[in-house]
Amino acid sequence: MNHRLVFRLLGTISWLIGLTMAFSLPIAFADVGGQAEFESRGFYALIASIAICASVGLVLRAAGRSAPETLYRKEAMAIVGLSWVLSTILGAFPYFLGSVVYTSTAGAEVPMGVAESFFESQSGFSTTGATVLTDIENKRWVPRCILFWRSSTHFLGGLGIIVLFVAVLGQGSAGKALMRAEIPGPSKEGSHERMQHTALVFAAIYCGLNATLALLLRFEGMTWFEAICHAFGTMATGGFSTRNASLGGFESRAIEYTVIFFMILAGTNFALLYFTLIRKPGRLLGDPEWRTYIGVIVVCTMMVMAVGIWVTTDFNAQGNLSTQEEYETAFRDGLFQVVSTLTTTGYGTADFDLWNSFSRALLIVLMFVGGCAGSTGGGMKVIRHILFVKILRREVDRSYHPSVVRHIRLKGESLLDPDLPRNILVYFGLVALIFTLSSQVIVGIEPDSTWIKAGQPVSNKLIDTASAVAATMHNIGPGLGIVGSTQNYAPFTALPKLLFTFLMMLGRLELFAILVLVEPGFWRER
Amino acid sequence: MNHRLVFRLLGTISWLIGLTMAFSLPIAFADVGGQAEFESRGFYALIASIAICASVGLVLRAAGRSAPETLYRKEAMAIVGLSWVLSTILGAFPYFLGSVVYTSTAGAEVPMGVAESFFESQSGFSTTGATVLTDIENKRWVPRCILFWRSSTHFLGGLGIIVLFVAVLGQGSAGKALMRAEIPGPSKEGSHERMQHTALVFAAIYCGLNATLALLLRFEGMTWFEAICHAFGTMATGGFSTRNASLGGFESRAIEYTVIFFMILAGTNFALLYFTLIRKPGRLLGDPEWRTYIGVIVVCTMMVMAVGIWVTTDFNAQGNLSTQEEYETAFRDGLFQVVSTLTTTGYGTADFDLWNSFSRALLIVLMFVGGCAGSTGGGMKVIRHILFVKILRREVDRSYHPSVVRHIRLKGESLLDPDLPRNILVYFGLVALIFTLSSQVIVGIEPDSTWIKAGQPVSNKLIDTASAVAATMHNIGPGLGIVGSTQNYAPFTALPKLLFTFLMMLGRLELFAILVLVEPGFWRER
Repeated sequence: MNHRLVFRLLGTISWLIGLTMAFSLPIAFADVGGQAEFESRGFYALIASIAICASVGLVLRAAGRSAPETLYRKEAMAIVGLSWVLSTILGAFPYFLGSVVYTSTAGAEVPMGVAESFFESQSGFSTTGATVLTDIENKRWVPRCILFWRSSTHFLGGLGIIVLFVAVLGQGSAGKALMRAEIPGPSKEGSHERMQHTALVFAAIYCGLNATLALLLRFEGMTWFEAICHAFGTMATGGFSTRNASLGGFESRAIEYTVIFFMILAGTNFALLYFTLIRKPGRLLGDPEWRTYIGVIVVCTMMVMAVGIWVTTDFNAQGNLSTQEEYETAFRDGLFQVVSTLTTTGYGTADFDLWNSFSRALLIVLMFVGGCAGSTGGGMKVIRHILFVKILRREVDRSYHPSVVRHIRLKGESLLDPDLPRNILVYFGLVALIFTLSSQVIVGIEPDSTWIKAGQPVSNKLIDTASAVAATMHNIGPGLGIVGSTQNYAPFTALPKLLFTFLMMLGRLELFAILVLVEPGFWRER
Repeated sequence: MNHRLVFRLLGTISWLIGLTMAFSLPIAFADVGGQAEFESRGFYALIASIAICASVGLVLRAAGRSAPETLYRKEAMAIVGLSWVLSTILGAFPYFLGSVVYTSTAGAEVPMGVAESFFESQSGFSTTGATVLTDIENKRWVPRCILFWRSSTHFLGGLGIIVLFVAVLGQGSAGKALMRAEIPGPSKEGSHERMQHTALVFAAIYCGLNATLALLLRFEGMTWFEAICHAFGTMATGGFSTRNASLGGFESRAIEYTVIFFMILAGTNFALLYFTLIRKPGRLLGDPEWRTYIGVIVVCTMMVMAVGIWVTTDFNAQGNLSTQEEYETAFRDGLFQVVSTLTTTGYGTADFDLWNSFSRALLIVLMFVGGCAGSTGGGMKVIRHILFVKILRREVDRSYHPSVVRHIRLKGESLLDPDLPRNILVYFGLVALIFTLSSQVIVGIEPDSTWIKAGQPVSNKLIDTASAVAATMHNIGPGLGIVGSTQNYAPFTALPKLLFTFLMMLGRLELFAILVLVEPGFWRER
């Protein structure tokens, strides 16, 4: 392993994080609550954090001086995994040094500890959007400049996924087969120039969409501060808001429909967005993954609407809406929640925890689906599910017709990569194993009293915990019950918070880049 | 497809079922409740059912006259699947024709309908032990002779699995690799004589263990009727009892420890039991699957005890036990429930639904593990989990070291079957898919009012349904909440009951034999 190269690149990432922190500094002076004031606590916390990032960067780059340029597979994996670990640690300093208050017990304000700071930092970078902060509108608890840093971690995390992970590493096993032919660029597969070109194009699309959305939200009634934070949260499929009631706090249909549209874009393969921009929309409309993605949104929204209107009264609980209003609410809330969950954004406009069991179960299932490969969306990705079903179908056929080897076909072309079926199945197996083990461990170490203190029924401990594990490992954010859309992760004790932090990182990097880091053989072998 | 051969063998199975029914006839005259009486309703229902079995057998054997003897893979699969479907239908007649009362609504007795009869019949043959009967101690509701038929279906189902499935078909993908070398017999692998010999040996062990257990239970205080029914329920890993409080109704430590021991035997590979009988116990003690199986029992029992004693008061809820009594109760109840769940028997001595969330979650996880391959136990089998973890481990290594192909090793020998990893992963994938889809569908079609009527909180609908799906598809029986150990499947509406019936069959035959039956290509192609 070429350690020095790893060090040098990690040093650059430290500097990049420090640089991004600097953009939050002006907010400390800004007029954010209708009253200009200097938030000294947040300001000095950011200054100190920037100094730390700069020093760590200096040390790492010094350690990596005159490293050879060659990047092998192992170094690439190590850099991706370690850069996420490093970002989480560095990104946690503003919360920790700023003594951000996340909750209060018996009237006393509780500042964020190490576990809370890591959690919030990782939740930002992994574009999860799960939070431990119970009152983000309280400026005395959470300085505005640190709230802006919180949303900036979404932007940086989304950029990291789109550039580092998608463009440079070919975005994991699932998308690789598809993307090889799809990635835009002047030269042949795998070449350095082509990768750089792709990364630049993707980054430009990402920044452009962020700017467009911020502009739209500004004109739809948000302040610039709110508009930029929510653009960051949407395009990264993150979900951090500036309101305690999430996006629902704005009570604006225009804003909700706008965010729905941009969430759908954020969950779309960026290569397909590129083709649409260069006036080849056929590539987007004909793409099997995107068609399935849209199909899932349409079908699930219809099911949520149908059950919520005809079987229960989820969308008219007070009984004060006309039939037309109820249908519009059902459409808007249903679509919003389905898109928010599928794209793994996690914004909320309705408390879906009050919905019927069928719709809640459906949202949990959607957490396991996720966005398209090559997007900022998390989760397992739509393409993996398409291939998963095709592979299982083929294996059932094979059980009575062993001699027939049918290739998995997608869009009429057969996928010849012989490793693809195994990779897909292994991915599903790992997800099932990690999900089950993590849920079991957290049910074991988190005491029942957490539920009692949070005013939640202890009988829901199993399902709440399972939903929290799914919501973190697939980078959604909110789950059911104690971590429901109007709740947060504050009640959990430190150890489960750290486990959730690990799960967010694991899911965001599609398991392998993190799993190898905890595998002794990875570091031992050459 | 050689249809006539399929018909002929199904005809034989019809006769076998009719013959077994005849063994329940004497019970109609017996002194079962301390008072001799003739249960005419049950008697005539059995006579009519036997006549139906005989006629169906006649017709099928006539249709299959002079069929060629050759049995190809497709015919074998069709026979296994269809024989289970046929058994379920024929086995349901006594319940249906006997107008067995399964519950009462508003004081009125409700006789078993088509869905209830299929459910109870399938639950017996598949050795699941899930029931719709709410009062089996009421002789007016459930005639004793039909209750004996109910337990006989366990015996027949267990025998079917051990003989047809394990010995003849080589027990599916997972065990095959192990069993090839293990199956006892005079001649070489796959030969007709060897299969016949193996089948006979296994059947003899199975019947011998049933007789031994019945004898033991008789001397530990049960009546002959109860002893035989519980021996059938234990050795088939079924779980049908003759008491409403299941095995706990006898309140006898001797009986509980005896049943624990025999459940462990029933979940053990019968080939290993054979080697132990011929004084080669080293094969049993050195077997990696059996060692893991015992290890799981020990570790899980210890965890259930530890949490139940030190964190909660699960085993001393009334606070009236001494420390020593509490430890003994914790050991006995914990071990019983772990063994009962792991072996997929489903007998109960304690209401584990009152246990803490950790222990309940652990039992749900154990439902997905199951017994050893080559046993009467259901579930996914321990060996599949061993290989699953080994395969995932190898794939994580492979992600950074693509050139290394390590063989999966078991007991020091590498398993060279190149299809094995894929088969294991496909099995896990199918289980995950079927589990998720079925839970979602049942949450959708079963109304919330079912929970309200059963006096269960609607907020538990998701977890209860998921546990019911796991408990049926892995052939355990009881689950959580509405299908908890003191409850039953009576409250469900007809459609979910039929879906549960399908799941029991699917799980029992390890998915493929049933999945191909609903695959159009299976019937179309030559």
